[in-house]
Amino acid sequence: MSENIAAEPDRLLPADPGTRAIARRLLALVEQLPILSPHGHVDAAMILRNTPFPDPATLLVTPDHYVTRVIHASGIPLHSLGVRNPTSLPEPAAAGTGAGAIAGAGIDAARAGRDVWRAFVKAWPLFEGTASGYWFRQEFEHVFRLDISALDAITPAADDGVADGLFDQLSARLREPDFRPRKLFSDFNIEVLATTDDPLDDLSAHAALAADPTFPGRVLPTFRPDAYIKFHAAGWAERVERLISVAGDGHSGYPGYLQALENRRQYFVNHGAVSADHGSRTAGTLKLPAEQAQALFDKARRGDATAEDADAFEAHMMYQMARMSVADGLVMTLHPGVFRNHHRPTFESFGADTGHDIPFPVSFTEGLRPLLEDFGTVPGFHFIPFTVDETVFSREIAPLAGFYPAVYIGAPWWFLDAPDAMLRFRSAVTETAGFSRSSGFIDDTRAFCSIPARHNTSRRIEASFLARLVAERRISETRAADIIVDIVDAAPRRAFKL
Amino acid sequence: MSENIAAEPDRLLPADPGTRAIARRLLALVEQLPILSPHGHVDAAMILRNTPFPDPATLLVTPDHYVTRVIHASGIPLHSLGVRNPTSLPEPAAAGTGAGAIAGAGIDAARAGRDVWRAFVKAWPLFEGTASGYWFRQEFEHVFRLDISALDAITPAADDGVADGLFDQLSARLREPDFRPRKLFSDFNIEVLATTDDPLDDLSAHAALAADPTFPGRVLPTFRPDAYIKFHAAGWAERVERLISVAGDGHSGYPGYLQALENRRQYFVNHGAVSADHGSRTAGTLKLPAEQAQALFDKARRGDATAEDADAFEAHMMYQMARMSVADGLVMTLHPGVFRNHHRPTFESFGADTGHDIPFPVSFTEGLRPLLEDFGTVPGFHFIPFTVDETVFSREIAPLAGFYPAVYIGAPWWFLDAPDAMLRFRSAVTETAGFSRSSGFIDDTRAFCSIPARHNTSRRIEASFLARLVAERRISETRAADIIVDIVDAAPRRAFKL
Amino acid sequence: MSENIAAEPDRLLPADPGTRAIARRLLALVEQLPILSPHGHVDAAMILRNTPFPDPATLLVTPDHYVTRVIHASGIPLHSLGVRNPTSLPEPAAAGTGAGAIAGAGIDAARAGRDVWRAFVKAWPLFEGTASGYWFRQEFEHVFRLDISALDAITPAADDGVADGLFDQLSARLREPDFRPRKLFSDFNIEVLATTDDPLDDLSAHAALAADPTFPGRVLPTFRPDAYIKFHAAGWAERVERLISVAGDGHSGYPGYLQALENRRQYFVNHGAVSADHGSRTAGTLKLPAEQAQALFDKARRGDATAEDADAFEAHMMYQMARMSVADGLVMTLHPGVFRNHHRPTFESFGADTGHDIPFPVSFTEGLRPLLEDFGTVPGFHFIPFTVDETVFSREIAPLAGFYPAVYIGAPWWFLDAPDAMLRFRSAVTETAGFSRSSGFIDDTRAFCSIPARHNTSRRIEASFLARLVAERRISETRAADIIVDIVDAAPRRAFKL
Repeated sequence: MSENIAAEPDRLLPADPGTRAIARRLLALVEQLPILSPHGHVDAAMILRNTPFPDPATLLVTPDHYVTRVIHASGIPLHSLGVRNPTSLPEPAAAGTGAGAIAGAGIDAARAGRDVWRAFVKAWPLFEGTASGYWFRQEFEHVFRLDISALDAITPAADDGVADGLFDQLSARLREPDFRPRKLFSDFNIEVLATTDDPLDDLSAHAALAADPTFPGRVLPTFRPDAYIKFHAAGWAERVERLISVAGDGHSGYPGYLQALENRRQYFVNHGAVSADHGSRTAGTLKLPAEQAQALFDKARRGDATAEDADAFEAHMMYQMARMSVADGLVMTLHPGVFRNHHRPTFESFGADTGHDIPFPVSFTEGLRPLLEDFGTVPGFHFIPFTVDETVFSREIAPLAGFYPAVYIGAPWWFLDAPDAMLRFRSAVTETAGFSRSSGFIDDTRAFCSIPARHNTSRRIEASFLARLVAERRISETRAADIIVDIVDAAPRRAFKL
Repeated sequence: MSENIAAEPDRLLPADPGTRAIARRLLALVEQLPILSPHGHVDAAMILRNTPFPDPATLLVTPDHYVTRVIHASGIPLHSLGVRNPTSLPEPAAAGTGAGAIAGAGIDAARAGRDVWRAFVKAWPLFEGTASGYWFRQEFEHVFRLDISALDAITPAADDGVADGLFDQLSARLREPDFRPRKLFSDFNIEVLATTDDPLDDLSAHAALAADPTFPGRVLPTFRPDAYIKFHAAGWAERVERLISVAGDGHSGYPGYLQALENRRQYFVNHGAVSADHGSRTAGTLKLPAEQAQALFDKARRGDATAEDADAFEAHMMYQMARMSVADGLVMTLHPGVFRNHHRPTFESFGADTGHDIPFPVSFTEGLRPLLEDFGTVPGFHFIPFTVDETVFSREIAPLAGFYPAVYIGAPWWFLDAPDAMLRFRSAVTETAGFSRSSGFIDDTRAFCSIPARHNTSRRIEASFLARLVAERRISETRAADIIVDIVDAAPRRAFKL
Repeated sequence: MSENIAAEPDRLLPADPGTRAIARRLLALVEQLPILSPHGHVDAAMILRNTPFPDPATLLVTPDHYVTRVIHASGIPLHSLGVRNPTSLPEPAAAGTGAGAIAGAGIDAARAGRDVWRAFVKAWPLFEGTASGYWFRQEFEHVFRLDISALDAITPAADDGVADGLFDQLSARLREPDFRPRKLFSDFNIEVLATTDDPLDDLSAHAALAADPTFPGRVLPTFRPDAYIKFHAAGWAERVERLISVAGDGHSGYPGYLQALENRRQYFVNHGAVSADHGSRTAGTLKLPAEQAQALFDKARRGDATAEDADAFEAHMMYQMARMSVADGLVMTLHPGVFRNHHRPTFESFGADTGHDIPFPVSFTEGLRPLLEDFGTVPGFHFIPFTVDETVFSREIAPLAGFYPAVYIGAPWWFLDAPDAMLRFRSAVTETAGFSRSSGFIDDTRAFCSIPARHNTSRRIEASFLARLVAERRISETRAADIIVDIVDAAPRRAFKL
C-alpha cells in the first residue's frame, strides 16, 4: 500500500471495496463542479487589490485559529506563533464569526515567518486525524503542488530540514504570478464567494469587483449586524449611534435604529448580498411589543442593561431580522450556542477569535417558535440554522426542516466541518428530512487557499455517505447520482438564492 | 448491479460481503415470524367492518402526516394534499400520539385523489433516504405487488404518466377482495394488533372482533388517558365531567376522577388491553399528597390552572398511573419530550397531527425517580420509556433498564424509527443493558398497509446490527440467532405481556 | 467460521477484511506493552498481603455492581447474588466512585458461592453484547485459561452442569500459587497501578509495597476527598472534624480545613500519588471569596446547609482543588453528572455502589470557566474531565482540550468503557482535538483479574479506529503505528505524569 497518502485519489473514501467503487463514481460527477461559497470570511479587498500573499506562516498559520489553538494546546504560547493583539480597539466578541473568523487576531509583521513555520511543522503530528490536517494535506498537494510525503514522517523531534525545505518551496510558489488571488480564484473554479461584512461597510471593494470586466467571479457581501445588536459588545453604543446617524433617515432612537438596519440591508441587497448572518447567543426569538423593545434599547444606551435584557433584545431582534428578511429577501442564517472568548486572559492579550470559543448545549424547538409561527411558511423566506451541538440534528433541526418550507438545514459547521462529523450529520438528518432540505456546503473560512480543499473534502464525504446507501440497497445509484449533483450544486443555489 | 432496488432481497443489509452473508442468515430466521404490534393507531372498527379501502391517495398520502409534512416542506400547501380541518371540534393536542396518530387530520372526501397522488409522485425524490421512502417501496412491492422501478427514475419535472399508471394499478388492487382489511390482516401474518383508545370508548369493535369466530387475530385496545390528564387539552373540563359521571361510582371531584380512571382501566383490561399509554410533556413524576393533587384538580376545573400547575398534576398523575398499573397489570408506556402543534396557524387550519410536532431535550433520570423508587422493583410492573431525544439512550435509559426490573427500553420511535437511527439505538444501549431489556419493535402507525414494511425494515436492521457483532467476533452466530428470534418474537410478548 | 469466539484472535476487530488486516498489524505493536493503570479501585492491602482469592462467585460476581445490576434487572434479587449491606456505617454516596467502586457492597461470606455462580451462569446470555460480557470472556480465556465454549451455548433453561464445571475449574485455579495477587500482577505485566484512597488513609500498604524489594511494581495512591467536600455525605461533619484535628496544623474551622487538605495532599504526593480524583455532582467551579466559603462551611457544620449551599461549596472546592494541584503537581481528574443511589430502597438495604447510579445531562463549558480562566494555561497543571454524557465529547470536551494546555480528554468511562462507545468517542473528539490530547485508557476497576481484559479490549478498539482511518486514506499506516503506541503507552504517562 502506498504510504504517500497525500497523493492518494481515494482519500476519505470508504474502506469497503464495493462501497468505495460506488463512491468513486459519485465523486467523479461533482469533483470538477464550480465552487459555490455562500458563507465565508475572505476579504473582498484582498481579491480586488490582487496583492501577493505574504510568507507561508503569515498566510497559513498565524491567522488561522483552527491551527494555532491546536499548537497552543500542546504548550506553545500564541505569541510564538505570531499572534498579536490587534493594535486597534478589539473587535467585539459578537462580531467574531464561526469557523474562519480571525478578524481580531493581529499579526506581527515583524515576526520571522520561518520560526513560526518551523513550530508548525514540528506540530504537524498533532493535526493527524483532524479536519485541519486533511485540508492542509490537500491544499499542499493540489494548490501548491508540494511533495509532502516528508510530512508523513515528521516527528516532534525532527530537525528543521523538512520545515525549511517546505518553507522555501512555498515561498517560491507564493512569488509566482499564478499565486495571486485573482488567478487562484479562477483556478479554484470559484463561481460565487460571499464575504461577511459590517453593516456600515461601504462595500466599495465588492462594487469595484462587480464593475471590473476582467474579473468574472461573483464576490457577494453578507450583512452581519451582531455588533449592533448585542448590548454588551464592545463599543455597541457608539456603533449604534453612528448607524442611526448615517442611515436612520433622520429618525432617532429605536425607530431610527430599525430604519437604519432596514436601509443598510437594502444597501447590501443592492450590492448583491443574498444573506444576513447572525451569531446569537441562544436560539431564542421574541416578538416584543415595540414599546418594550424601545425601553430595552434605551436602557442599554444608558448603560444599564442586564444580561437578561441583552438576551431578550437579541431574541427580539432575531424576530425583527426575520421580518426584514421576509421583506427584502435576504436569506437568514443563525448560528447560536457558542461561548465566545472562554479564556479571558487570552482575549485580553490577543483579542477575539483566538481559538477558545467553546460550544454549549442549545435547543431550537421552543426558541424559534415565535419566528417560525409568523414566518415559517411565508413563501420566499429562507431560514438556515447552524449548530455546533450535534444533538439537535436528529432531535430538532431535521423535524423542523421536514415541515417548515422556510427552514433549510445548515451544513455541519466549525468543529463539525470534518469527515466523521459530516457523516454523522447526514445519518442524523436524512431519515427524517431527506436530502432536499439541506443548505449545501459552506466553508466559512478566511483561509482563501484552503477553500478548494474544504469543498473537495465535503464532496468526498457526500459521495461516501451516498455510496453506503447505494451499497446497502437503500437508494439506486442513478438516484444517488442525481442527489450528489443536487447537494453540491443546486442546494446552495436554492437555499442561498444564488 | 440491478438498479431496481425495490426488488432487491438485500435491501437495508450491510455492504461488507461477509457481514451481509451473516445478516441474510439471521434475517431468514425471523422474516416469516408473525407480526406482533403492541402499540399503534389502526382503527378497530375499520377491521370489524372490513370495508374496502378508499383511493390510493386517501389511503396512503392524505392521512399520513409523516408523508404530507415532507411534501409541505417543499412548498406544497397541506390543503392541496387533501388535508382538511376535521369538522368536529379539534381533538386536544394531548390526544395526538406519536408516530402514526392522524386522528385530527380530516380528509376532504371530495378532493380528487388523483391530483393528490400526482403531487405525491412528483415529490417522490424527496423521500429518498427517508424512513417513509423505505416503507413505501416495500409496501408497493410486497403488499401491492407493483413494479415501481419507474419511481426510481421519477424527477420533479416528470409528467404525470407514471403517477397515473401507478394510481390506476393501485386503484384496481384496492377493489380486489384480497385487499380488504381482514384478508390483509391474515396475509400480513398479524397475530396481535393493539389500537389506541379513549378511556370512555366502549370498545365494542374490539368486543365484536373477539367474539367473531371467523376472525382469528387479536385486536387489543390500549388505554390512553392524556386528554383527561392535561389541564389545557381542549375540552378537558367537559371530558373529565363526563368521565366522573359515567365511571366515578357516584363519587365526585378528584376522588371520583381517580375512581373513574381505575374503573375504565379495568374495563380495558376486561377487553384484552395489555398496556396504558402516556404522552406526557416531560418525564417528571411526582407523589403529591392527595389534598394537594385535589387542589390542583379543583383549580383546573375552575379554569385557573397555570402551566406549572398542569405540569405538576401531569407528573402526579404519571405516578398514579404507575400505581394503578401495579394494581391492574397494564404495562405503562411513556413518551415525553415532544412540542405538539408547533406551528399554531397550521394547527388552527388543519388540526393536530399535521406534521409539526417537534422534539425537545428530555432527561429521565431525576424525573422518573419518584415513580421508580416506589415501583421500579415491584414484580410484574412493566414500564417502557420511549424517546425522540437520542441522547438519553446511552446516558439514561440503558443504565435505568440495566438495573430496574420494571424498565424495558422502548424501541426507537417516530423520527427514530428508521434504519440508521435504529442502528445508533442498538449501539447506544446494548453495551450497558444487553439485548434482553428492550421492548421489541412497535410500529405506532395508523397506516395499516405499511405495517409489514415497518416490521420487515426493523427485522433487517436487527439482523444487520447482530451480523456486525458476529463479524467483529463479539458474539457467536449461534447466539446471534437466539437473540434475533428473542428480539422479534419473545421480547414484545415479554415486555407487553402478550 | 469458528463458533468458539472466545479463542478468536480477531475478536473486536473490524469486519472489513482490508481494515482488519491493518488493525491486526497495529494491535501487534501494543498488545504486549505493559499495563499502565492510572485510575482504579484495587485495594493495595490485597496486593501487599498477597492472600489467595476467595471462591469464583465472591471474586467475580458479588462485588461487581456492573454484573449484579444486570442480573438484578432480570428479576433476581441482589441478596440472592450474595450482596449484603456492609455492617459498618454505609459509606457516603460521594465516596462511591465510578466504574469499579464496590466499597459499600458488603459480601455475605456465609452465602454459598456455588449458588451465586449458578445464577450468574444462567444469566450469562444477558451479558452478550455488553462490555462486561467481553471482559469476562477474555478474562476466562486468558487469565484463567478456561475452555468457555460451553458458555456460548448456555441458555436460561440450562441445568447447572456447565456452571458447576466452571466453578470447580475456577476454584482449582484460584488455589494454585500462580493465582495469588502478586504473581498475577507480574503476569499481567502491570507497571503502574493507582488505587483510590481516603485522604486520611495512612497509605501504609503503599509504603510497604514501595519498600519491598521483591515487588517491582508501582502501586500509587490517589487522593479522593469527595466525602470531605460534599456537605450531605453521611458523616461529613465528623469526618471533617477528624481531618482538621489530625492535619489542620492547629488551625480550626475553614482555614484548618483547607490547611489539612493541603497537608494530606502533600502526604499523598510523598507516597507517590500522581493524581487527585473528584466525583462532583455538576461541572460547576466557583471562586468564592474566602469569607463566603467560610460562611457556607460553618453553616454546614451547624447542619443548616441547603442543596444549593452544597453545590456552591463543592464548586468552590473544585476551584480550590485546582489551585492546590497547581501548587503540588497532582493531576486533577473530575467526573461529574451521575445521580448516585437512584433507588433509595436498594441503597438502604445494600448500601452504595449497588448498580443504580444513573447519569444525567452535564455541560462543562460555563461551569469550568472560573477554573480554566485562572489555571487552564498554567504550565504543569493537568486537568482531566471524564463524562458519561456522550454529548459533551464533540460539543465541549474536544474544543476545550483543543485550546487549553491543561485539559486532557478523559477516556470513555464507566458505561462508556465499551467497544462501540469507545469508537464513538474517538470519532467525536479526534477531528477537533487530534490524538495527542487524550488521557490514555483507565480501567477504573476493583476487579483485579479483569484488568488485562479491559486494557486489551481498549487496545483492540484503538487499533480498529486507527485502521479505519488508514483504510479510508486519512492517515498513513506509519503514522497510525506511532499514534497507537503513543495512545497506549505515552499518553497515560504524559497525562498522569507517571
